[in-house]
Amino acid sequence: MFQIPKFISSRDSVEDASIVLAGVPYDCTSSFRAGSRFASREVRNYAYEAIEEFSFYQNVLLDDVPFCDIGDLEIMVGNPAEMVETVMGEVRPYLEMGKRFLAIGGEHLVTLPLFMVHREFYQDFTLLHLDAHADLRDGYAGDTLSHASVMKCCLDNGLEKLIQVGIRSCTRDEHKLRQTDSRIIPTASLDDVSDALEEGEMVYLSVDLDYFDPAFVPGTGTPEAGGASFNDFMRLVKLLDSKKCRIIGADVVELAPEIDRSGISVAFAAKLLRELLICMDKNS
Amino acid sequence: MFQIPKFISSRDSVEDASIVLAGVPYDCTSSFRAGSRFASREVRNYAYEAIEEFSFYQNVLLDDVPFCDIGDLEIMVGNPAEMVETVMGEVRPYLEMGKRFLAIGGEHLVTLPLFMVHREFYQDFTLLHLDAHADLRDGYAGDTLSHASVMKCCLDNGLEKLIQVGIRSCTRDEHKLRQTDSRIIPTASLDDVSDALEEGEMVYLSVDLDYFDPAFVPGTGTPEAGGASFNDFMRLVKLLDSKKCRIIGADVVELAPEIDRSGISVAFAAKLLRELLICMDKNS
Amino acid sequence: MFQIPKFISSRDSVEDASIVLAGVPYDCTSSFRAGSRFASREVRNYAYEAIEEFSFYQNVLLDDVPFCDIGDLEIMVGNPAEMVETVMGEVRPYLEMGKRFLAIGGEHLVTLPLFMVHREFYQDFTLLHLDAHADLRDGYAGDTLSHASVMKCCLDNGLEKLIQVGIRSCTRDEHKLRQTDSRIIPTASLDDVSDALEEGEMVYLSVDLDYFDPAFVPGTGTPEAGGASFNDFMRLVKLLDSKKCRIIGADVVELAPEIDRSGISVAFAAKLLRELLICMDKNS
Amino acid sequence: MFQIPKFISSRDSVEDASIVLAGVPYDCTSSFRAGSRFASREVRNYAYEAIEEFSFYQNVLLDDVPFCDIGDLEIMVGNPAEMVETVMGEVRPYLEMGKRFLAIGGEHLVTLPLFMVHREFYQDFTLLHLDAHADLRDGYAGDTLSHASVMKCCLDNGLEKLIQVGIRSCTRDEHKLRQTDSRIIPTASLDDVSDALEEGEMVYLSVDLDYFDPAFVPGTGTPEAGGASFNDFMRLVKLLDSKKCRIIGADVVELAPEIDRSGISVAFAAKLLRELLICMDKNS
Amino acid sequence: MFQIPKFISSRDSVEDASIVLAGVPYDCTSSFRAGSRFASREVRNYAYEAIEEFSFYQNVLLDDVPFCDIGDLEIMVGNPAEMVETVMGEVRPYLEMGKRFLAIGGEHLVTLPLFMVHREFYQDFTLLHLDAHADLRDGYAGDTLSHASVMKCCLDNGLEKLIQVGIRSCTRDEHKLRQTDSRIIPTASLDDVSDALEEGEMVYLSVDLDYFDPAFVPGTGTPEAGGASFNDFMRLVKLLDSKKCRIIGADVVELAPEIDRSGISVAFAAKLLRELLICMDKNS
Amino acid sequence: MFQIPKFISSRDSVEDASIVLAGVPYDCTSSFRAGSRFASREVRNYAYEAIEEFSFYQNVLLDDVPFCDIGDLEIMVGNPAEMVETVMGEVRPYLEMGKRFLAIGGEHLVTLPLFMVHREFYQDFTLLHLDAHADLRDGYAGDTLSHASVMKCCLDNGLEKLIQVGIRSCTRDEHKLRQTDSRIIPTASLDDVSDALEEGEMVYLSVDLDYFDPAFVPGTGTPEAGGASFNDFMRLVKLLDSKKCRIIGADVVELAPEIDRSGISVAFAAKLLRELLICMDKNS
Repeated sequence: MFQIPKFISSRDSVEDASIVLAGVPYDCTSSFRAGSRFASREVRNYAYEAIEEFSFYQNVLLDDVPFCDIGDLEIMVGNPAEMVETVMGEVRPYLEMGKRFLAIGGEHLVTLPLFMVHREFYQDFTLLHLDAHADLRDGYAGDTLSHASVMKCCLDNGLEKLIQVGIRSCTRDEHKLRQTDSRIIPTASLDDVSDALEEGEMVYLSVDLDYFDPAFVPGTGTPEAGGASFNDFMRLVKLLDSKKCRIIGADVVELAPEIDRSGISVAFAAKLLRELLICMDKNS
Repeated sequence: MFQIPKFISSRDSVEDASIVLAGVPYDCTSSFRAGSRFASREVRNYAYEAIEEFSFYQNVLLDDVPFCDIGDLEIMVGNPAEMVETVMGEVRPYLEMGKRFLAIGGEHLVTLPLFMVHREFYQDFTLLHLDAHADLRDGYAGDTLSHASVMKCCLDNGLEKLIQVGIRSCTRDEHKLRQTDSRIIPTASLDDVSDALEEGEMVYLSVDLDYFDPAFVPGTGTPEAGGASFNDFMRLVKLLDSKKCRIIGADVVELAPEIDRSGISVAFAAKLLRELLICMDKNS
Repeated sequence: MFQIPKFISSRDSVEDASIVLAGVPYDCTSSFRAGSRFASREVRNYAYEAIEEFSFYQNVLLDDVPFCDIGDLEIMVGNPAEMVETVMGEVRPYLEMGKRFLAIGGEHLVTLPLFMVHREFYQDFTLLHLDAHADLRDGYAGDTLSHASVMKCCLDNGLEKLIQVGIRSCTRDEHKLRQTDSRIIPTASLDDVSDALEEGEMVYLSVDLDYFDPAFVPGTGTPEAGGASFNDFMRLVKLLDSKKCRIIGADVVELAPEIDRSGISVAFAAKLLRELLICMDKNS
Repeated sequence: MFQIPKFISSRDSVEDASIVLAGVPYDCTSSFRAGSRFASREVRNYAYEAIEEFSFYQNVLLDDVPFCDIGDLEIMVGNPAEMVETVMGEVRPYLEMGKRFLAIGGEHLVTLPLFMVHREFYQDFTLLHLDAHADLRDGYAGDTLSHASVMKCCLDNGLEKLIQVGIRSCTRDEHKLRQTDSRIIPTASLDDVSDALEEGEMVYLSVDLDYFDPAFVPGTGTPEAGGASFNDFMRLVKLLDSKKCRIIGADVVELAPEIDRSGISVAFAAKLLRELLICMDKNS
Repeated sequence: MFQIPKFISSRDSVEDASIVLAGVPYDCTSSFRAGSRFASREVRNYAYEAIEEFSFYQNVLLDDVPFCDIGDLEIMVGNPAEMVETVMGEVRPYLEMGKRFLAIGGEHLVTLPLFMVHREFYQDFTLLHLDAHADLRDGYAGDTLSHASVMKCCLDNGLEKLIQVGIRSCTRDEHKLRQTDSRIIPTASLDDVSDALEEGEMVYLSVDLDYFDPAFVPGTGTPEAGGASFNDFMRLVKLLDSKKCRIIGADVVELAPEIDRSGISVAFAAKLLRELLICMDKNS
Repeated sequence: MFQIPKFISSRDSVEDASIVLAGVPYDCTSSFRAGSRFASREVRNYAYEAIEEFSFYQNVLLDDVPFCDIGDLEIMVGNPAEMVETVMGEVRPYLEMGKRFLAIGGEHLVTLPLFMVHREFYQDFTLLHLDAHADLRDGYAGDTLSHASVMKCCLDNGLEKLIQVGIRSCTRDEHKLRQTDSRIIPTASLDDVSDALEEGEMVYLSVDLDYFDPAFVPGTGTPEAGGASFNDFMRLVKLLDSKKCRIIGADVVELAPEIDRSGISVAFAAKLLRELLICMDKNS
């Protein structure tokens, strides 16, 4: 009789799962329009009401993917440095158990602790970064730890290969860094991404939903015209599959449900998560 | 002095019309987000305020199309079986008079009685089905008669040829049915549709507005990313025209105006109806 | 300590600028859904919060463009004829000083006085008109001066070359005029526009935001499905650049912020203005 | 089968009615937030869906009140002087037939032609004015004919007795006029109103919906905190009844449906109109 | 780590509770604006975020009230008769265990099965009915089982004493029934309610949220101006307490969260539920 | 020609003013629904469009009040301790110049630095606190500096007399503190407030807008049913006046414009600020 607020098709227990799904409801450095804290809750509710368990795109039933939605991590409001500690502490046990982790943000800064804790377990991996913004600032609004500097923070914490897809907004300094830092691979097409990826490469995938055009995902804090479509994303998923890349972890961030009252942004994210779960299970 | 709430360019009387336009304000099996009951009213209001009578696409003035908007059918809230009876009873006289019928939903279940009553008058015809969802379930939420099973119901009531366009969400069972039932023709491109249609074929056209991408029509109950555009629809209209297909009846369903407060969904539907009316008149 | 409500990167004083940016908050002939009066205010606010000063597209920093946002022109509510006088009177001094003018509407009728005052200073120039609607009526709702007749008014006031891009809605009479009046050049593709433009031509650019698809800019009074994207616009900007066309003046009109509560329309317009400012500076 | 968009319980024909109900969809001098043009349409729709025909307050069935909703007057957008002419011309025939008139605005300026045409038929009558604003300016935004000056215009056109109820916003000049002009009777309580009204007096009642607190009617252009409640209005209605005042005409203005998406403002206005129709019929 | 979606302060297990709280997400006979199906979910979420566990009004900590939120009952969409069966079947076991039941609607029809199943366990009790509408129709929109006829249905199923509070909308027939049926006690003031209640009486309390003024609870399907305030409700609660009435069961219905985007309706309902839980525990 | 975004009737320069008005756009500890950062901007815009300069209530023209709106203080996102420092540093110079300060929040935590900096200049004064919540926690969500603990922080920083008005939500601990700490004076009526205030007392007034009922101010983060009205506030203002209390400083906080799309909350706050400015000037 209980309405269990897990993502559809979730296993009841983590033991039965190889992939762990969790919300990371933190949005405190959001400089402009917050609300991504409520993304995981709304995505679960929407998926329960209106998303099929079957993927028409990958011809797979989500029920056949052994994942478990463990709910939302418990994060204090406020201090970003503390958030980084907390997320690392909460995620580490699952990586120790050999699980893979898929996080629903929250703002983009949550990628930093996720990246850092994966670094403890994987030596070499690529961060595949889908976003409208380069997120390579040295800091933002007086703080080093910010959604606008998250990729810079990852580079500063050991990231060796960063493939950026969809970027169409940055500062002049970020622009220069992208041209000069050999660890960063800017791409302008799917072919570029294909060239940048090696066969069987280990990939951590970070999807900022403003990678997509605001027409498709209006519910995000800093919408940037000229973005990608859902089908663009599926082509990328298929590329990863065909290249036999292994997704060792992933996050989907910056969904702000309140901003889009029509609900199409939440629906988009719920569908994307289904496809991502299936894809993560494929080359595991 | 009276503000007559008919669709723009409607004839005053049914006698002067060969096409009958009507609202079918029923949305009771809508499993998630209802409101399509108000679609016909909002579409008429919007068309009156902001839609041209001239089609830039087909170079035709809607005034030259002899259609009459007869208002909304009177339908009881609740019981779907009764709704099926009522709609058939209300539409039959117009088909007896040799008119063609264009319905504004309401939810997709209204296609069932529309299909059934057309079966009484036309022996062989194709149902051309534009939708994001296959609508081929055996039933939904405990009921056989549902928006999610409407095409299955049509097949069970004599439909011999179902061309599906735009489908990108279904259950595994629906997926299998689409692959095995020879009456169903799945298509993935306009060429597929062209191949599936014979020259001069009689077509009943059913347009679920979630066939279109939610970016274009956010105001629908179960938005599904990755859909078609208005120009895709116009290409289909031109294909029907070039193939000299005769549209013997049509419906446009699942517009839920309240969900999209910006009004672009209603504007989209009003424009689509204008083009559809002109197209129906062409090969008549 | 003062929060100066200028567009980001604006110079403090007009003396330091070659381009003058101003709001023209007039929306009184808006036949259906008003609100474009508030466009300039919202665009400035949004740009301040969330737009980069660097253009990823043109690789230019807006700080390097010498423009000054002089605020909103002071316009009385009501009488369109008075508005035409007022705008001409307020803009003329800047043209006398050799500045170029970029206006943020307001409704499309504001293009009339802008065109007329430019005619006083430039002998031959082309009006490049991006819009969903032809705006070639003889008048609208009983008035000659209307957003729906603004291009006709320009033709009646000396316009010799009108290139129209994106038109997909018009009356039959407008359609005929477009086919018969040799001053009007309808275009259906970027190639058509390229053919219509001469090398080094002087261009006044008028952008009605409903030129874009309502999916991208839902916040406009009369959304028309089937429109352009941001990238289409950037291609046009690059065409103007490659043709060494000189933009002698420009306006961006018909943004109605209230209609789109998600804010993506305002974000779109703010970004477009940044690109337009940079482009105007290029071939100056 | 036609959905007739009349107010509930309306007679089919004017001949059968002693009261004529009509929309006056004009909102062009609205200085700030327009939209009252759509009030009559939304009120009729809402009443049809959700208002009882029986008044619990007056124990009368609206069916027993002989009124006819004749739809909306046809008014050109724009020029206020023309609107005044048009409304007078359209209403005059009904007054000639001995009917009484109840108008649904539109903005408050529509009261001016309604007052003026009643002056042609009734020699002495009181204008009972419910409003948050005094509307006694000499003009507004450069125009004499404005919603903000409508009561001043009535005084200038022969009004001899103006009782104001609910006023809580005015300029210093309006404040002085209220204290010095003997034709104006400011009131601060129901007792004041009672004192100001004579037994059996002829009253034209003008209700600006911002008379009510914005909590009850948020959907109005210039909400003013500290206003009246529905029960306050019913007490006034009962006072008019007990004083045997005859309501020779009335209007309900400044409802802007779009501003209040919850719909409670439209619901409020629909209920108020029912009570007003019943009340108008009582002492006829 | 799991975010358990129970109402704040809920016990983990039913065994530890004397009061059972549950959602009844059914809104299928809602004639106009549906959405009450989502009320229980939104109320729980809101309470979790923003409601204190301490009642300032009753000086009690909700933690000290032994109640358990068991989630939402599982109810099929559609058939009202089936819903009545289902609810009775799901609630009965708790009454057998001696628990009391507090339901969160859903539409008002859910009160019928709740009343009926309580009749199986309690011989004589009063239904205290807070509502704007009498709900005494013989049926509505062709159906006997409807939110608009629910109190009539209760009377037809054995209800002997119905105290109605707040009614301000009904049909003429309902009005007559209220005056002639001796089982019905209409009240117009708190004193009337006090007179109608006996010391120590057993009361089933049904709160339709449109009992309150739409200013306080705009998020309801059929808002009716002129309603009660939160403090009115607390006075009633204190009256029940002072009269030592025992609340044997209760429901709070017709909250439609989507209609009120500001969220004050959900906040109101969450607070009301806290007070009701505390009150139910007092004279138990 | 510049649109200066000052509150209506503001002097151009601080030198000409005895009262300084400023926005304090900080909302980072908002636990639930943020957005008060944009309050000052929206209030200025609204006042410019729709608020009279004349107070009907106090019969004073705001032009006669020598105040200057200096815009928004510049505050970094994030760290509350830094915000406290910044606000104190920015406000101190004005107090040194003998000006009084009226702040527009922002969240309630901004009252802490405002209180603290006033303590540097005034020895004994009363904090008159209008709020729904006691704000007496020891900390909130892991942080001592929070909107929910701001009054406790003031007490910990030297506040000797705290009069609380309107409180209707608190924890059990806060409830006890209110009963036991002799520095806190809880009030339940205007008479209580009158008793608590001495003739000629120096008062710092802090108005949390959730002091008012959510019906009047829905646009606030944690709406609490059962609050005060605008007229209640005006009675308090008059009490302060009649007691010859001197308002040495004030703030109006927790307005979150985005939450209330109808705009009545912003309109309410703009009007309240006008009255407060006039009142502050009276007993200066």
